[in-house]
Amino acid sequence: RISWISKIIVVVSPENIETMKSIIEKYGHERVMIVEGGITRHRSIFNGLKVFAENEFSNHLLQKPEVVIIHDAVRPFVEEDILSKVVLAAKEHGAAGAIRPLVSTVIASAADGCLDHSLERARYRASEMPQAFLFDVIYEAYQQCTDYDLDYGTECLHLALKYCNTNAKLVEGTADLWKVTYKRDLYAAESIIKDNLSQQVCVITYVKEAVAQVGFLLHEYLKSQIKVEAVSVSLSKSDSHLQDLFSGQCYNFVCINDKKYAIQETQQLVDMLEKSNIPLLYPVVLISVHLGVSENISFSIGMEELTRIKKFAREVKKKNILVYGLLIQYKVSNSF
Amino acid sequence: RISWISKIIVVVSPENIETMKSIIEKYGHERVMIVEGGITRHRSIFNGLKVFAENEFSNHLLQKPEVVIIHDAVRPFVEEDILSKVVLAAKEHGAAGAIRPLVSTVIASAADGCLDHSLERARYRASEMPQAFLFDVIYEAYQQCTDYDLDYGTECLHLALKYCNTNAKLVEGTADLWKVTYKRDLYAAESIIKDNLSQQVCVITYVKEAVAQVGFLLHEYLKSQIKVEAVSVSLSKSDSHLQDLFSGQCYNFVCINDKKYAIQETQQLVDMLEKSNIPLLYPVVLISVHLGVSENISFSIGMEELTRIKKFAREVKKKNILVYGLLIQYKVSNSF
Repeated sequence: RISWISKIIVVVSPENIETMKSIIEKYGHERVMIVEGGITRHRSIFNGLKVFAENEFSNHLLQKPEVVIIHDAVRPFVEEDILSKVVLAAKEHGAAGAIRPLVSTVIASAADGCLDHSLERARYRASEMPQAFLFDVIYEAYQQCTDYDLDYGTECLHLALKYCNTNAKLVEGTADLWKVTYKRDLYAAESIIKDNLSQQVCVITYVKEAVAQVGFLLHEYLKSQIKVEAVSVSLSKSDSHLQDLFSGQCYNFVCINDKKYAIQETQQLVDMLEKSNIPLLYPVVLISVHLGVSENISFSIGMEELTRIKKFAREVKKKNILVYGLLIQYKVSNSF
Repeated sequence: RISWISKIIVVVSPENIETMKSIIEKYGHERVMIVEGGITRHRSIFNGLKVFAENEFSNHLLQKPEVVIIHDAVRPFVEEDILSKVVLAAKEHGAAGAIRPLVSTVIASAADGCLDHSLERARYRASEMPQAFLFDVIYEAYQQCTDYDLDYGTECLHLALKYCNTNAKLVEGTADLWKVTYKRDLYAAESIIKDNLSQQVCVITYVKEAVAQVGFLLHEYLKSQIKVEAVSVSLSKSDSHLQDLFSGQCYNFVCINDKKYAIQETQQLVDMLEKSNIPLLYPVVLISVHLGVSENISFSIGMEELTRIKKFAREVKKKNILVYGLLIQYKVSNSF
């Protein structure tokens, strides 16, 4: 997703390596490499770093990077902005990490389970991910640190400070960096993804006056009703503009046509979507709207068409493309 | 909800007092009293406590309680268990509060925005709510504390320690005590409520063999498919057992009958539900299943019945009861 990241090392527990391999293959991730994790957080990160420094960990020694980013898989909504901020800060300071304000007061408990003291909330921050380091700083820190650090420590910034005398730059992150920890966090994550996917809809119409007008009206209506980026294009057999759209981040399509049998056009769109690899990550919704403008099309022909679309939709669902057919029939009267 | 709590003081910002009054009236909360909040957390809590100690804050001075619980409205999923735990601990220790493990490491930043030091995560805890205090302890603490405390402090346990030398007992809380802070927390809260509401379904059948059998089969099926507490009862005009059920925590009902016109029975159930006040808090779902066992009922009569149910459902929706009609017609054949 981010072009300036040259290699992604995924540290995986032994029992999940096969699953991860199949995921990487399925989605065609080319910059991703798998490394077996250790029994603690720090041991896992250290294993990941060794790929760039120790021969035994890979067939061909990878080129040592200037800066490495360390991130948690449980923080799925990391944006390019915070990644580039921590990287630039790490280049300057040797280390950098995202922080967030504390939501609750932090307290220290005494041995008897009673309050020892509480921390002044404004003076402290929650340390989040991503963090970035000059490779030499963090690798040196991991080489120097004790077994106690590796077994019980959790904070990379702490290691950089303790063993390399590097005071990390702290960078304010966004709320979306939170750690998906509890069941409720899965609900929240799902809702955020759904929200993001519904931000944009693409309206596709054929070059024909009546149809284009409906497309235009739909566009205007959607624009005023919900937060939506609507794009109107004309579809012809070999439209490169449309292909461009499919390489964007749109997951919702409304296709309006007035052909007697719209299934060929729908099939064509589905083929293009499939080639674009968009449906690999999230389901794509394609609503095929069929306008029966002429009086010649009888109700039964329309129903037949819908039955075909239904059958087609069942097939295409396996490719993670959800096709819905909508049949609108109206008479062209004089008062229209 | 909890019988041993004698009075609930809700501290509300001036602009929301009218809204809160209408909520209290709507839901018939009898133990709730409203107090105007201050400009900071501590000033608001202090205002709430004054109700029990200073004449000017209420028409009639309320009886001073032995123990007070302080809670945040942004933690909606507080259970009776943790409330009684902090109260009992407060009786013994003078103060007590719920805690949770830290999700992220806590760090202190230096003046230049760089890391000063990080805290060892295992030694610290997040201080959550509810907290409980002997009234005399916390009221004394608020009377003693400085304007700086009132304006910048956030931790009640800290005040009890500093001004009354009371080391609060720390009580491990559940994950559901988290603070609804960000938009994603609203999503999570909504999902938790929905989850809870869907934990129990009540299957109601009429005393008639064929219908009771369907009810039994549905009961068995639901039991094996989802986590569900299914209850089967027989419905007669004045069934007190059913009325008992309605005073429970069930929000989902399936009613199976074979009457020609089931709408009267559905109406009866809706009346009982309405009287029970269950639909005030969350929407109640009532699925009215109509079994057309006899061959005499024609398809058109069934459709007519569904149309009536649809109209009825639109009316009842305003009372927060969602009625769905399901029509099942089958022929009794010899091989049955």
